[in-house]
Amino acid sequence: MPTDLRARAEQVVQRCQTLARFSEDSGTIRRTFLSAPMRDCHREIAAWLAPLGVTPSVDAVGNLRALCPGATPDAPCLLVGSHLDTVPNAGSFDGILGIVLAVAVLESLHPQKLPFAIDLVAFSEEEGVRFGFPFIGSLALIGRLDASHLAQRDSRGISVREAIEDFGLNPSSLPRAALHPNTRAFLEFHIEQGPVLENLGLPLAVVDAIVGQSRLEFHFSGRANHAGTTPMDLRHDALAAAAEWIVAVEREAQRVPGLVATCGAIHADPGAVNVIPAEVRVSLDIRHASDALRAQALAKLLSFADEISSRRGVSVSHTVLLEQRAVPMNRALCDQAAQAILAAGFTPHRMTSGAGHDAMILAETVPTAMIFLRSPGGISHDPAESVLVSDVEAALACGLKLFEQLSSSGEFLGHNLPSKNNQTRTLRE
Amino acid sequence: MPTDLRARAEQVVQRCQTLARFSEDSGTIRRTFLSAPMRDCHREIAAWLAPLGVTPSVDAVGNLRALCPGATPDAPCLLVGSHLDTVPNAGSFDGILGIVLAVAVLESLHPQKLPFAIDLVAFSEEEGVRFGFPFIGSLALIGRLDASHLAQRDSRGISVREAIEDFGLNPSSLPRAALHPNTRAFLEFHIEQGPVLENLGLPLAVVDAIVGQSRLEFHFSGRANHAGTTPMDLRHDALAAAAEWIVAVEREAQRVPGLVATCGAIHADPGAVNVIPAEVRVSLDIRHASDALRAQALAKLLSFADEISSRRGVSVSHTVLLEQRAVPMNRALCDQAAQAILAAGFTPHRMTSGAGHDAMILAETVPTAMIFLRSPGGISHDPAESVLVSDVEAALACGLKLFEQLSSSGEFLGHNLPSKNNQTRTLRE
Repeated sequence: MPTDLRARAEQVVQRCQTLARFSEDSGTIRRTFLSAPMRDCHREIAAWLAPLGVTPSVDAVGNLRALCPGATPDAPCLLVGSHLDTVPNAGSFDGILGIVLAVAVLESLHPQKLPFAIDLVAFSEEEGVRFGFPFIGSLALIGRLDASHLAQRDSRGISVREAIEDFGLNPSSLPRAALHPNTRAFLEFHIEQGPVLENLGLPLAVVDAIVGQSRLEFHFSGRANHAGTTPMDLRHDALAAAAEWIVAVEREAQRVPGLVATCGAIHADPGAVNVIPAEVRVSLDIRHASDALRAQALAKLLSFADEISSRRGVSVSHTVLLEQRAVPMNRALCDQAAQAILAAGFTPHRMTSGAGHDAMILAETVPTAMIFLRSPGGISHDPAESVLVSDVEAALACGLKLFEQLSSSGEFLGHNLPSKNNQTRTLRE
Repeated sequence: MPTDLRARAEQVVQRCQTLARFSEDSGTIRRTFLSAPMRDCHREIAAWLAPLGVTPSVDAVGNLRALCPGATPDAPCLLVGSHLDTVPNAGSFDGILGIVLAVAVLESLHPQKLPFAIDLVAFSEEEGVRFGFPFIGSLALIGRLDASHLAQRDSRGISVREAIEDFGLNPSSLPRAALHPNTRAFLEFHIEQGPVLENLGLPLAVVDAIVGQSRLEFHFSGRANHAGTTPMDLRHDALAAAAEWIVAVEREAQRVPGLVATCGAIHADPGAVNVIPAEVRVSLDIRHASDALRAQALAKLLSFADEISSRRGVSVSHTVLLEQRAVPMNRALCDQAAQAILAAGFTPHRMTSGAGHDAMILAETVPTAMIFLRSPGGISHDPAESVLVSDVEAALACGLKLFEQLSSSGEFLGHNLPSKNNQTRTLRE
């Protein structure tokens, strides 16, 4: 077991690469909910924990759980971890790094006993690949995985319930997957999966909030006509209308700080070289940390679509596919994390997460914080996904500082914390 | 046989609707090269011609041909007609009307003998549906249908040569499908297939030229990235680049009189709601009566694509799919047609055809003119395609006037005409 942080950071990267070998696909990484390679991961992580005297268990939805007791039996509990599942053709660090880093922090602390217990969790499902909905692991912890979730089926017709049974687990044990009753907070380390920290030249950031998002489909409906015989002034071109709108969407997102808006999918009918497009469908994904600013921007984009279409004699309609509120992280815990980054010798950048994470689910129930590590090239969900050893070392140093701070935080160790949500007020000085 | 023009026009429309019943598909019109319903059309047209004492024949590529002799055996010959094949889910008038109108003119003239022979042609193929290339009928007349054309295969693997044999025709008779040696000109009546005449409130137009066209595919290549985690200023969005260019294409086409430019097909990869598009392919169809102006506009659109892409850190490339020069119609014959429209009591609008026609092929060999009839709603290649009886009446009157003019035209009847091409100079005063 390496003792200095640099060597420990190198081992973290190696361990992530070891877990990357456990895949459903040969040659690329793919590890979905309760797939066979999950067992290999569980076995491997258990082997790392054994020298610490900790024996993990697997809960009813396949989360790996390992409780490292605190100094006293009724000590408060800190949940730490991230997810073990991956997208298809994944990289080695998304999710996995947060688990392996937590193990390394436990190793660094061993055999010291803290005034709080540490509940390590490796979530079985965050990406939503197998069943088309995400967060199976974290929903189970907060008691929100219900019968309708268990009835969902994968592409082979297997339900979540059956997948659980097939893996040798018991769905009726689901209530026992709930959070330890003494849980005071959740902390998740995760790669940024974006280019912000690289652009700032910083290793770490504190996540203040996870963005809210809307996903919509717009349908521009014009008139198909002959590309050769229809003069420009007599056209009702649905693609020209959609294109003008896509440009307006981009301009609006560039104008509003913190707003991101993306048209990712487009389909034109009839889609022939020599026919003016009659029907165009375009997707919109719009995100902001402020739900009010997101709603305001969306209203503006809707009015742009109306104005552009009516001027062109084209009609437009839209369907809302997803509407998800922003989730603020716990402010006091974020401040503690920022202080720990500073104490470790780095500038604590504070940012919004543009992607969803397990932290978003846990934040409904316990004070939650997330720490991002720089993603080289902003690359994620790709075999080229990477992390710098020096950034992992920074994250380890920050984690140890944070645990040290919490060990002397009357507020974190105290008993006057609300049992539910309300993250913006709990743990705040 | 009706004698007044109005009744004759009504009969023309009815006859087009009769031919529309001969289809490969039940309920919709589809009549491709040498399909079974072509025989029904041939039989029907032969029945109309019988009272005139004319017996048509079918040439080696399935064109129906009927020669109405002139006053003398060596009289010059005027070719008149259009195409009998259709697109799938077609209307009743595209092509067919030009044949049925020619028959009605012959009926109106009967039993009068003109100083020129009339060679009626119903082309077997103009749309290019069955073999993916058009003009099989007219190419045979000018001797340009060659072995490589005959070797082309349809979706069932049947070659043009085999289709000819299957229909009971003989490919080795192809040379005999050539134009009558005395042919002095070709005249084609056709529906406009666009909204220009309707917008002007006119029944007829003379086609001065058939546009030249370029078809290209543009490929914008950016960088795929997470729609939530990538700030607007760090994106290389291929769809936003393509959209900006599509808007610029439209603006340029609106600026240059007579130019039409269409982006009809678009495909974005990966095409997911939450991923910034990395690769976008867009088609461009650009047409103008002047090849120089088309080339100039195209150069401008290429530079727009370069400027937009380089500003956005996106790359762009293009492939030319088709490059077809404009084909001017014969000026003297067009002037004669305009004069005939005027003599029939209508304003002779002169316009460019934005679509290709058999006239484009014949113009390589003989002086050629086209007369367009108004298309209600600009609708064509659709079951809703129609024609006004009053416009058919106008076309009949114009045709009769034109034949009258040609009967006394020393130039048309004379012997000093070049045997090949050079359409802009022959027949000109």
